[in-house]
Amino acid sequence: MTSNDQWTDSIDSRLAQQLDFLQQINALKAVYRASIIQKGDRQENSAEHSWHLAMYALILDEHANTTVDKFRVISMLLLHDIVEIDAGDAPLHGPTDPQREQKEQAAADRLYQLLPDDQAQKYRTLWDEFEAGITDDAKFAKALDRLQPIVLNHQTEGGTWEDFNVSRSQVEARTGAIAKGSNTLWDAAKKSFTAAVNKGWLKPG
Amino acid sequence: MTSNDQWTDSIDSRLAQQLDFLQQINALKAVYRASIIQKGDRQENSAEHSWHLAMYALILDEHANTTVDKFRVISMLLLHDIVEIDAGDAPLHGPTDPQREQKEQAAADRLYQLLPDDQAQKYRTLWDEFEAGITDDAKFAKALDRLQPIVLNHQTEGGTWEDFNVSRSQVEARTGAIAKGSNTLWDAAKKSFTAAVNKGWLKPG
Repeated sequence: MTSNDQWTDSIDSRLAQQLDFLQQINALKAVYRASIIQKGDRQENSAEHSWHLAMYALILDEHANTTVDKFRVISMLLLHDIVEIDAGDAPLHGPTDPQREQKEQAAADRLYQLLPDDQAQKYRTLWDEFEAGITDDAKFAKALDRLQPIVLNHQTEGGTWEDFNVSRSQVEARTGAIAKGSNTLWDAAKKSFTAAVNKGWLKPG
Repeated sequence: MTSNDQWTDSIDSRLAQQLDFLQQINALKAVYRASIIQKGDRQENSAEHSWHLAMYALILDEHANTTVDKFRVISMLLLHDIVEIDAGDAPLHGPTDPQREQKEQAAADRLYQLLPDDQAQKYRTLWDEFEAGITDDAKFAKALDRLQPIVLNHQTEGGTWEDFNVSRSQVEARTGAIAKGSNTLWDAAKKSFTAAVNKGWLKPG
């Protein structure tokens, strides 16, 4: 999805680098996730997923276990998935890829380096912080990244739970990190699992 | 795209309102714009467009005519198009709809009211500020909303310029508000128009 015309050759080189990055991340709109956007409809892509997560942060920050910097959380969520442009999506309930981390690191090395050095360093560091999941902002960002597909699975009447034929305990193990960011949201998630089991969308046990 | 199960009945009513809003705005992923994401590929939807704009703000804020509050600009851009869930998209180069403003106001009345009162008022006010386009933050947000389709038209080798058969002067008239937010970005946009005319993607004159 890179441009084949070179109009940016005629502008300031720093702005040209920034616009090249913004053109290249356009490709995130073509990375499809396991979640579907509506029952019977197409899969969600990682760009619109990232928008939705940023909206989750805008609206739900009051539920974080600690006070978080909403702007930092939103910034993390906006860029958290751009590595998937090179590395692809890794579905939560799909098979484990032992090369996954290596692929994502290589993708980050390539993509963030498209930016001017100061921004490359700043946003790569922010993504590293998200990945590590240790700071309060990263814990809350990761909590939302786990919560949104749960809510979407309810909207789509089973979604990936049915597609991957998973059980409540498997889902709880894979999404339990929500509690590190927000006990309130984890309590809500558990209630949603109970409702999903009752509907037959999620296997009990 | 609303949920047909009522699992949120069992959680705190404020959180339930917030999650209902976040479920309903999922529908923005099904609002398709005139722009295409890649030559020969599908149209862009307003959710992924909003993500891309938020990334534009994250990376390009240094080019604003005045210092802007990047968090406020990003917040505006994340929610600027949700009225399209009810009102549909209005292509920049398409026909004018005299009922447009009325439709968008009705959509805003419905959608923001889904939120708890304090958030409904806060984010409706922020959207009103974006629409008015008077403050520095709103001017810069609107500049990015005009710039991103221009960059995408280069990536897609003509895009909406060819689809709507428009001339350089028409495009300049419809995107000139970029200068209110950023003279630097407007200068770059004008260079892109020159390149597009040379490529035959945009009619001269």
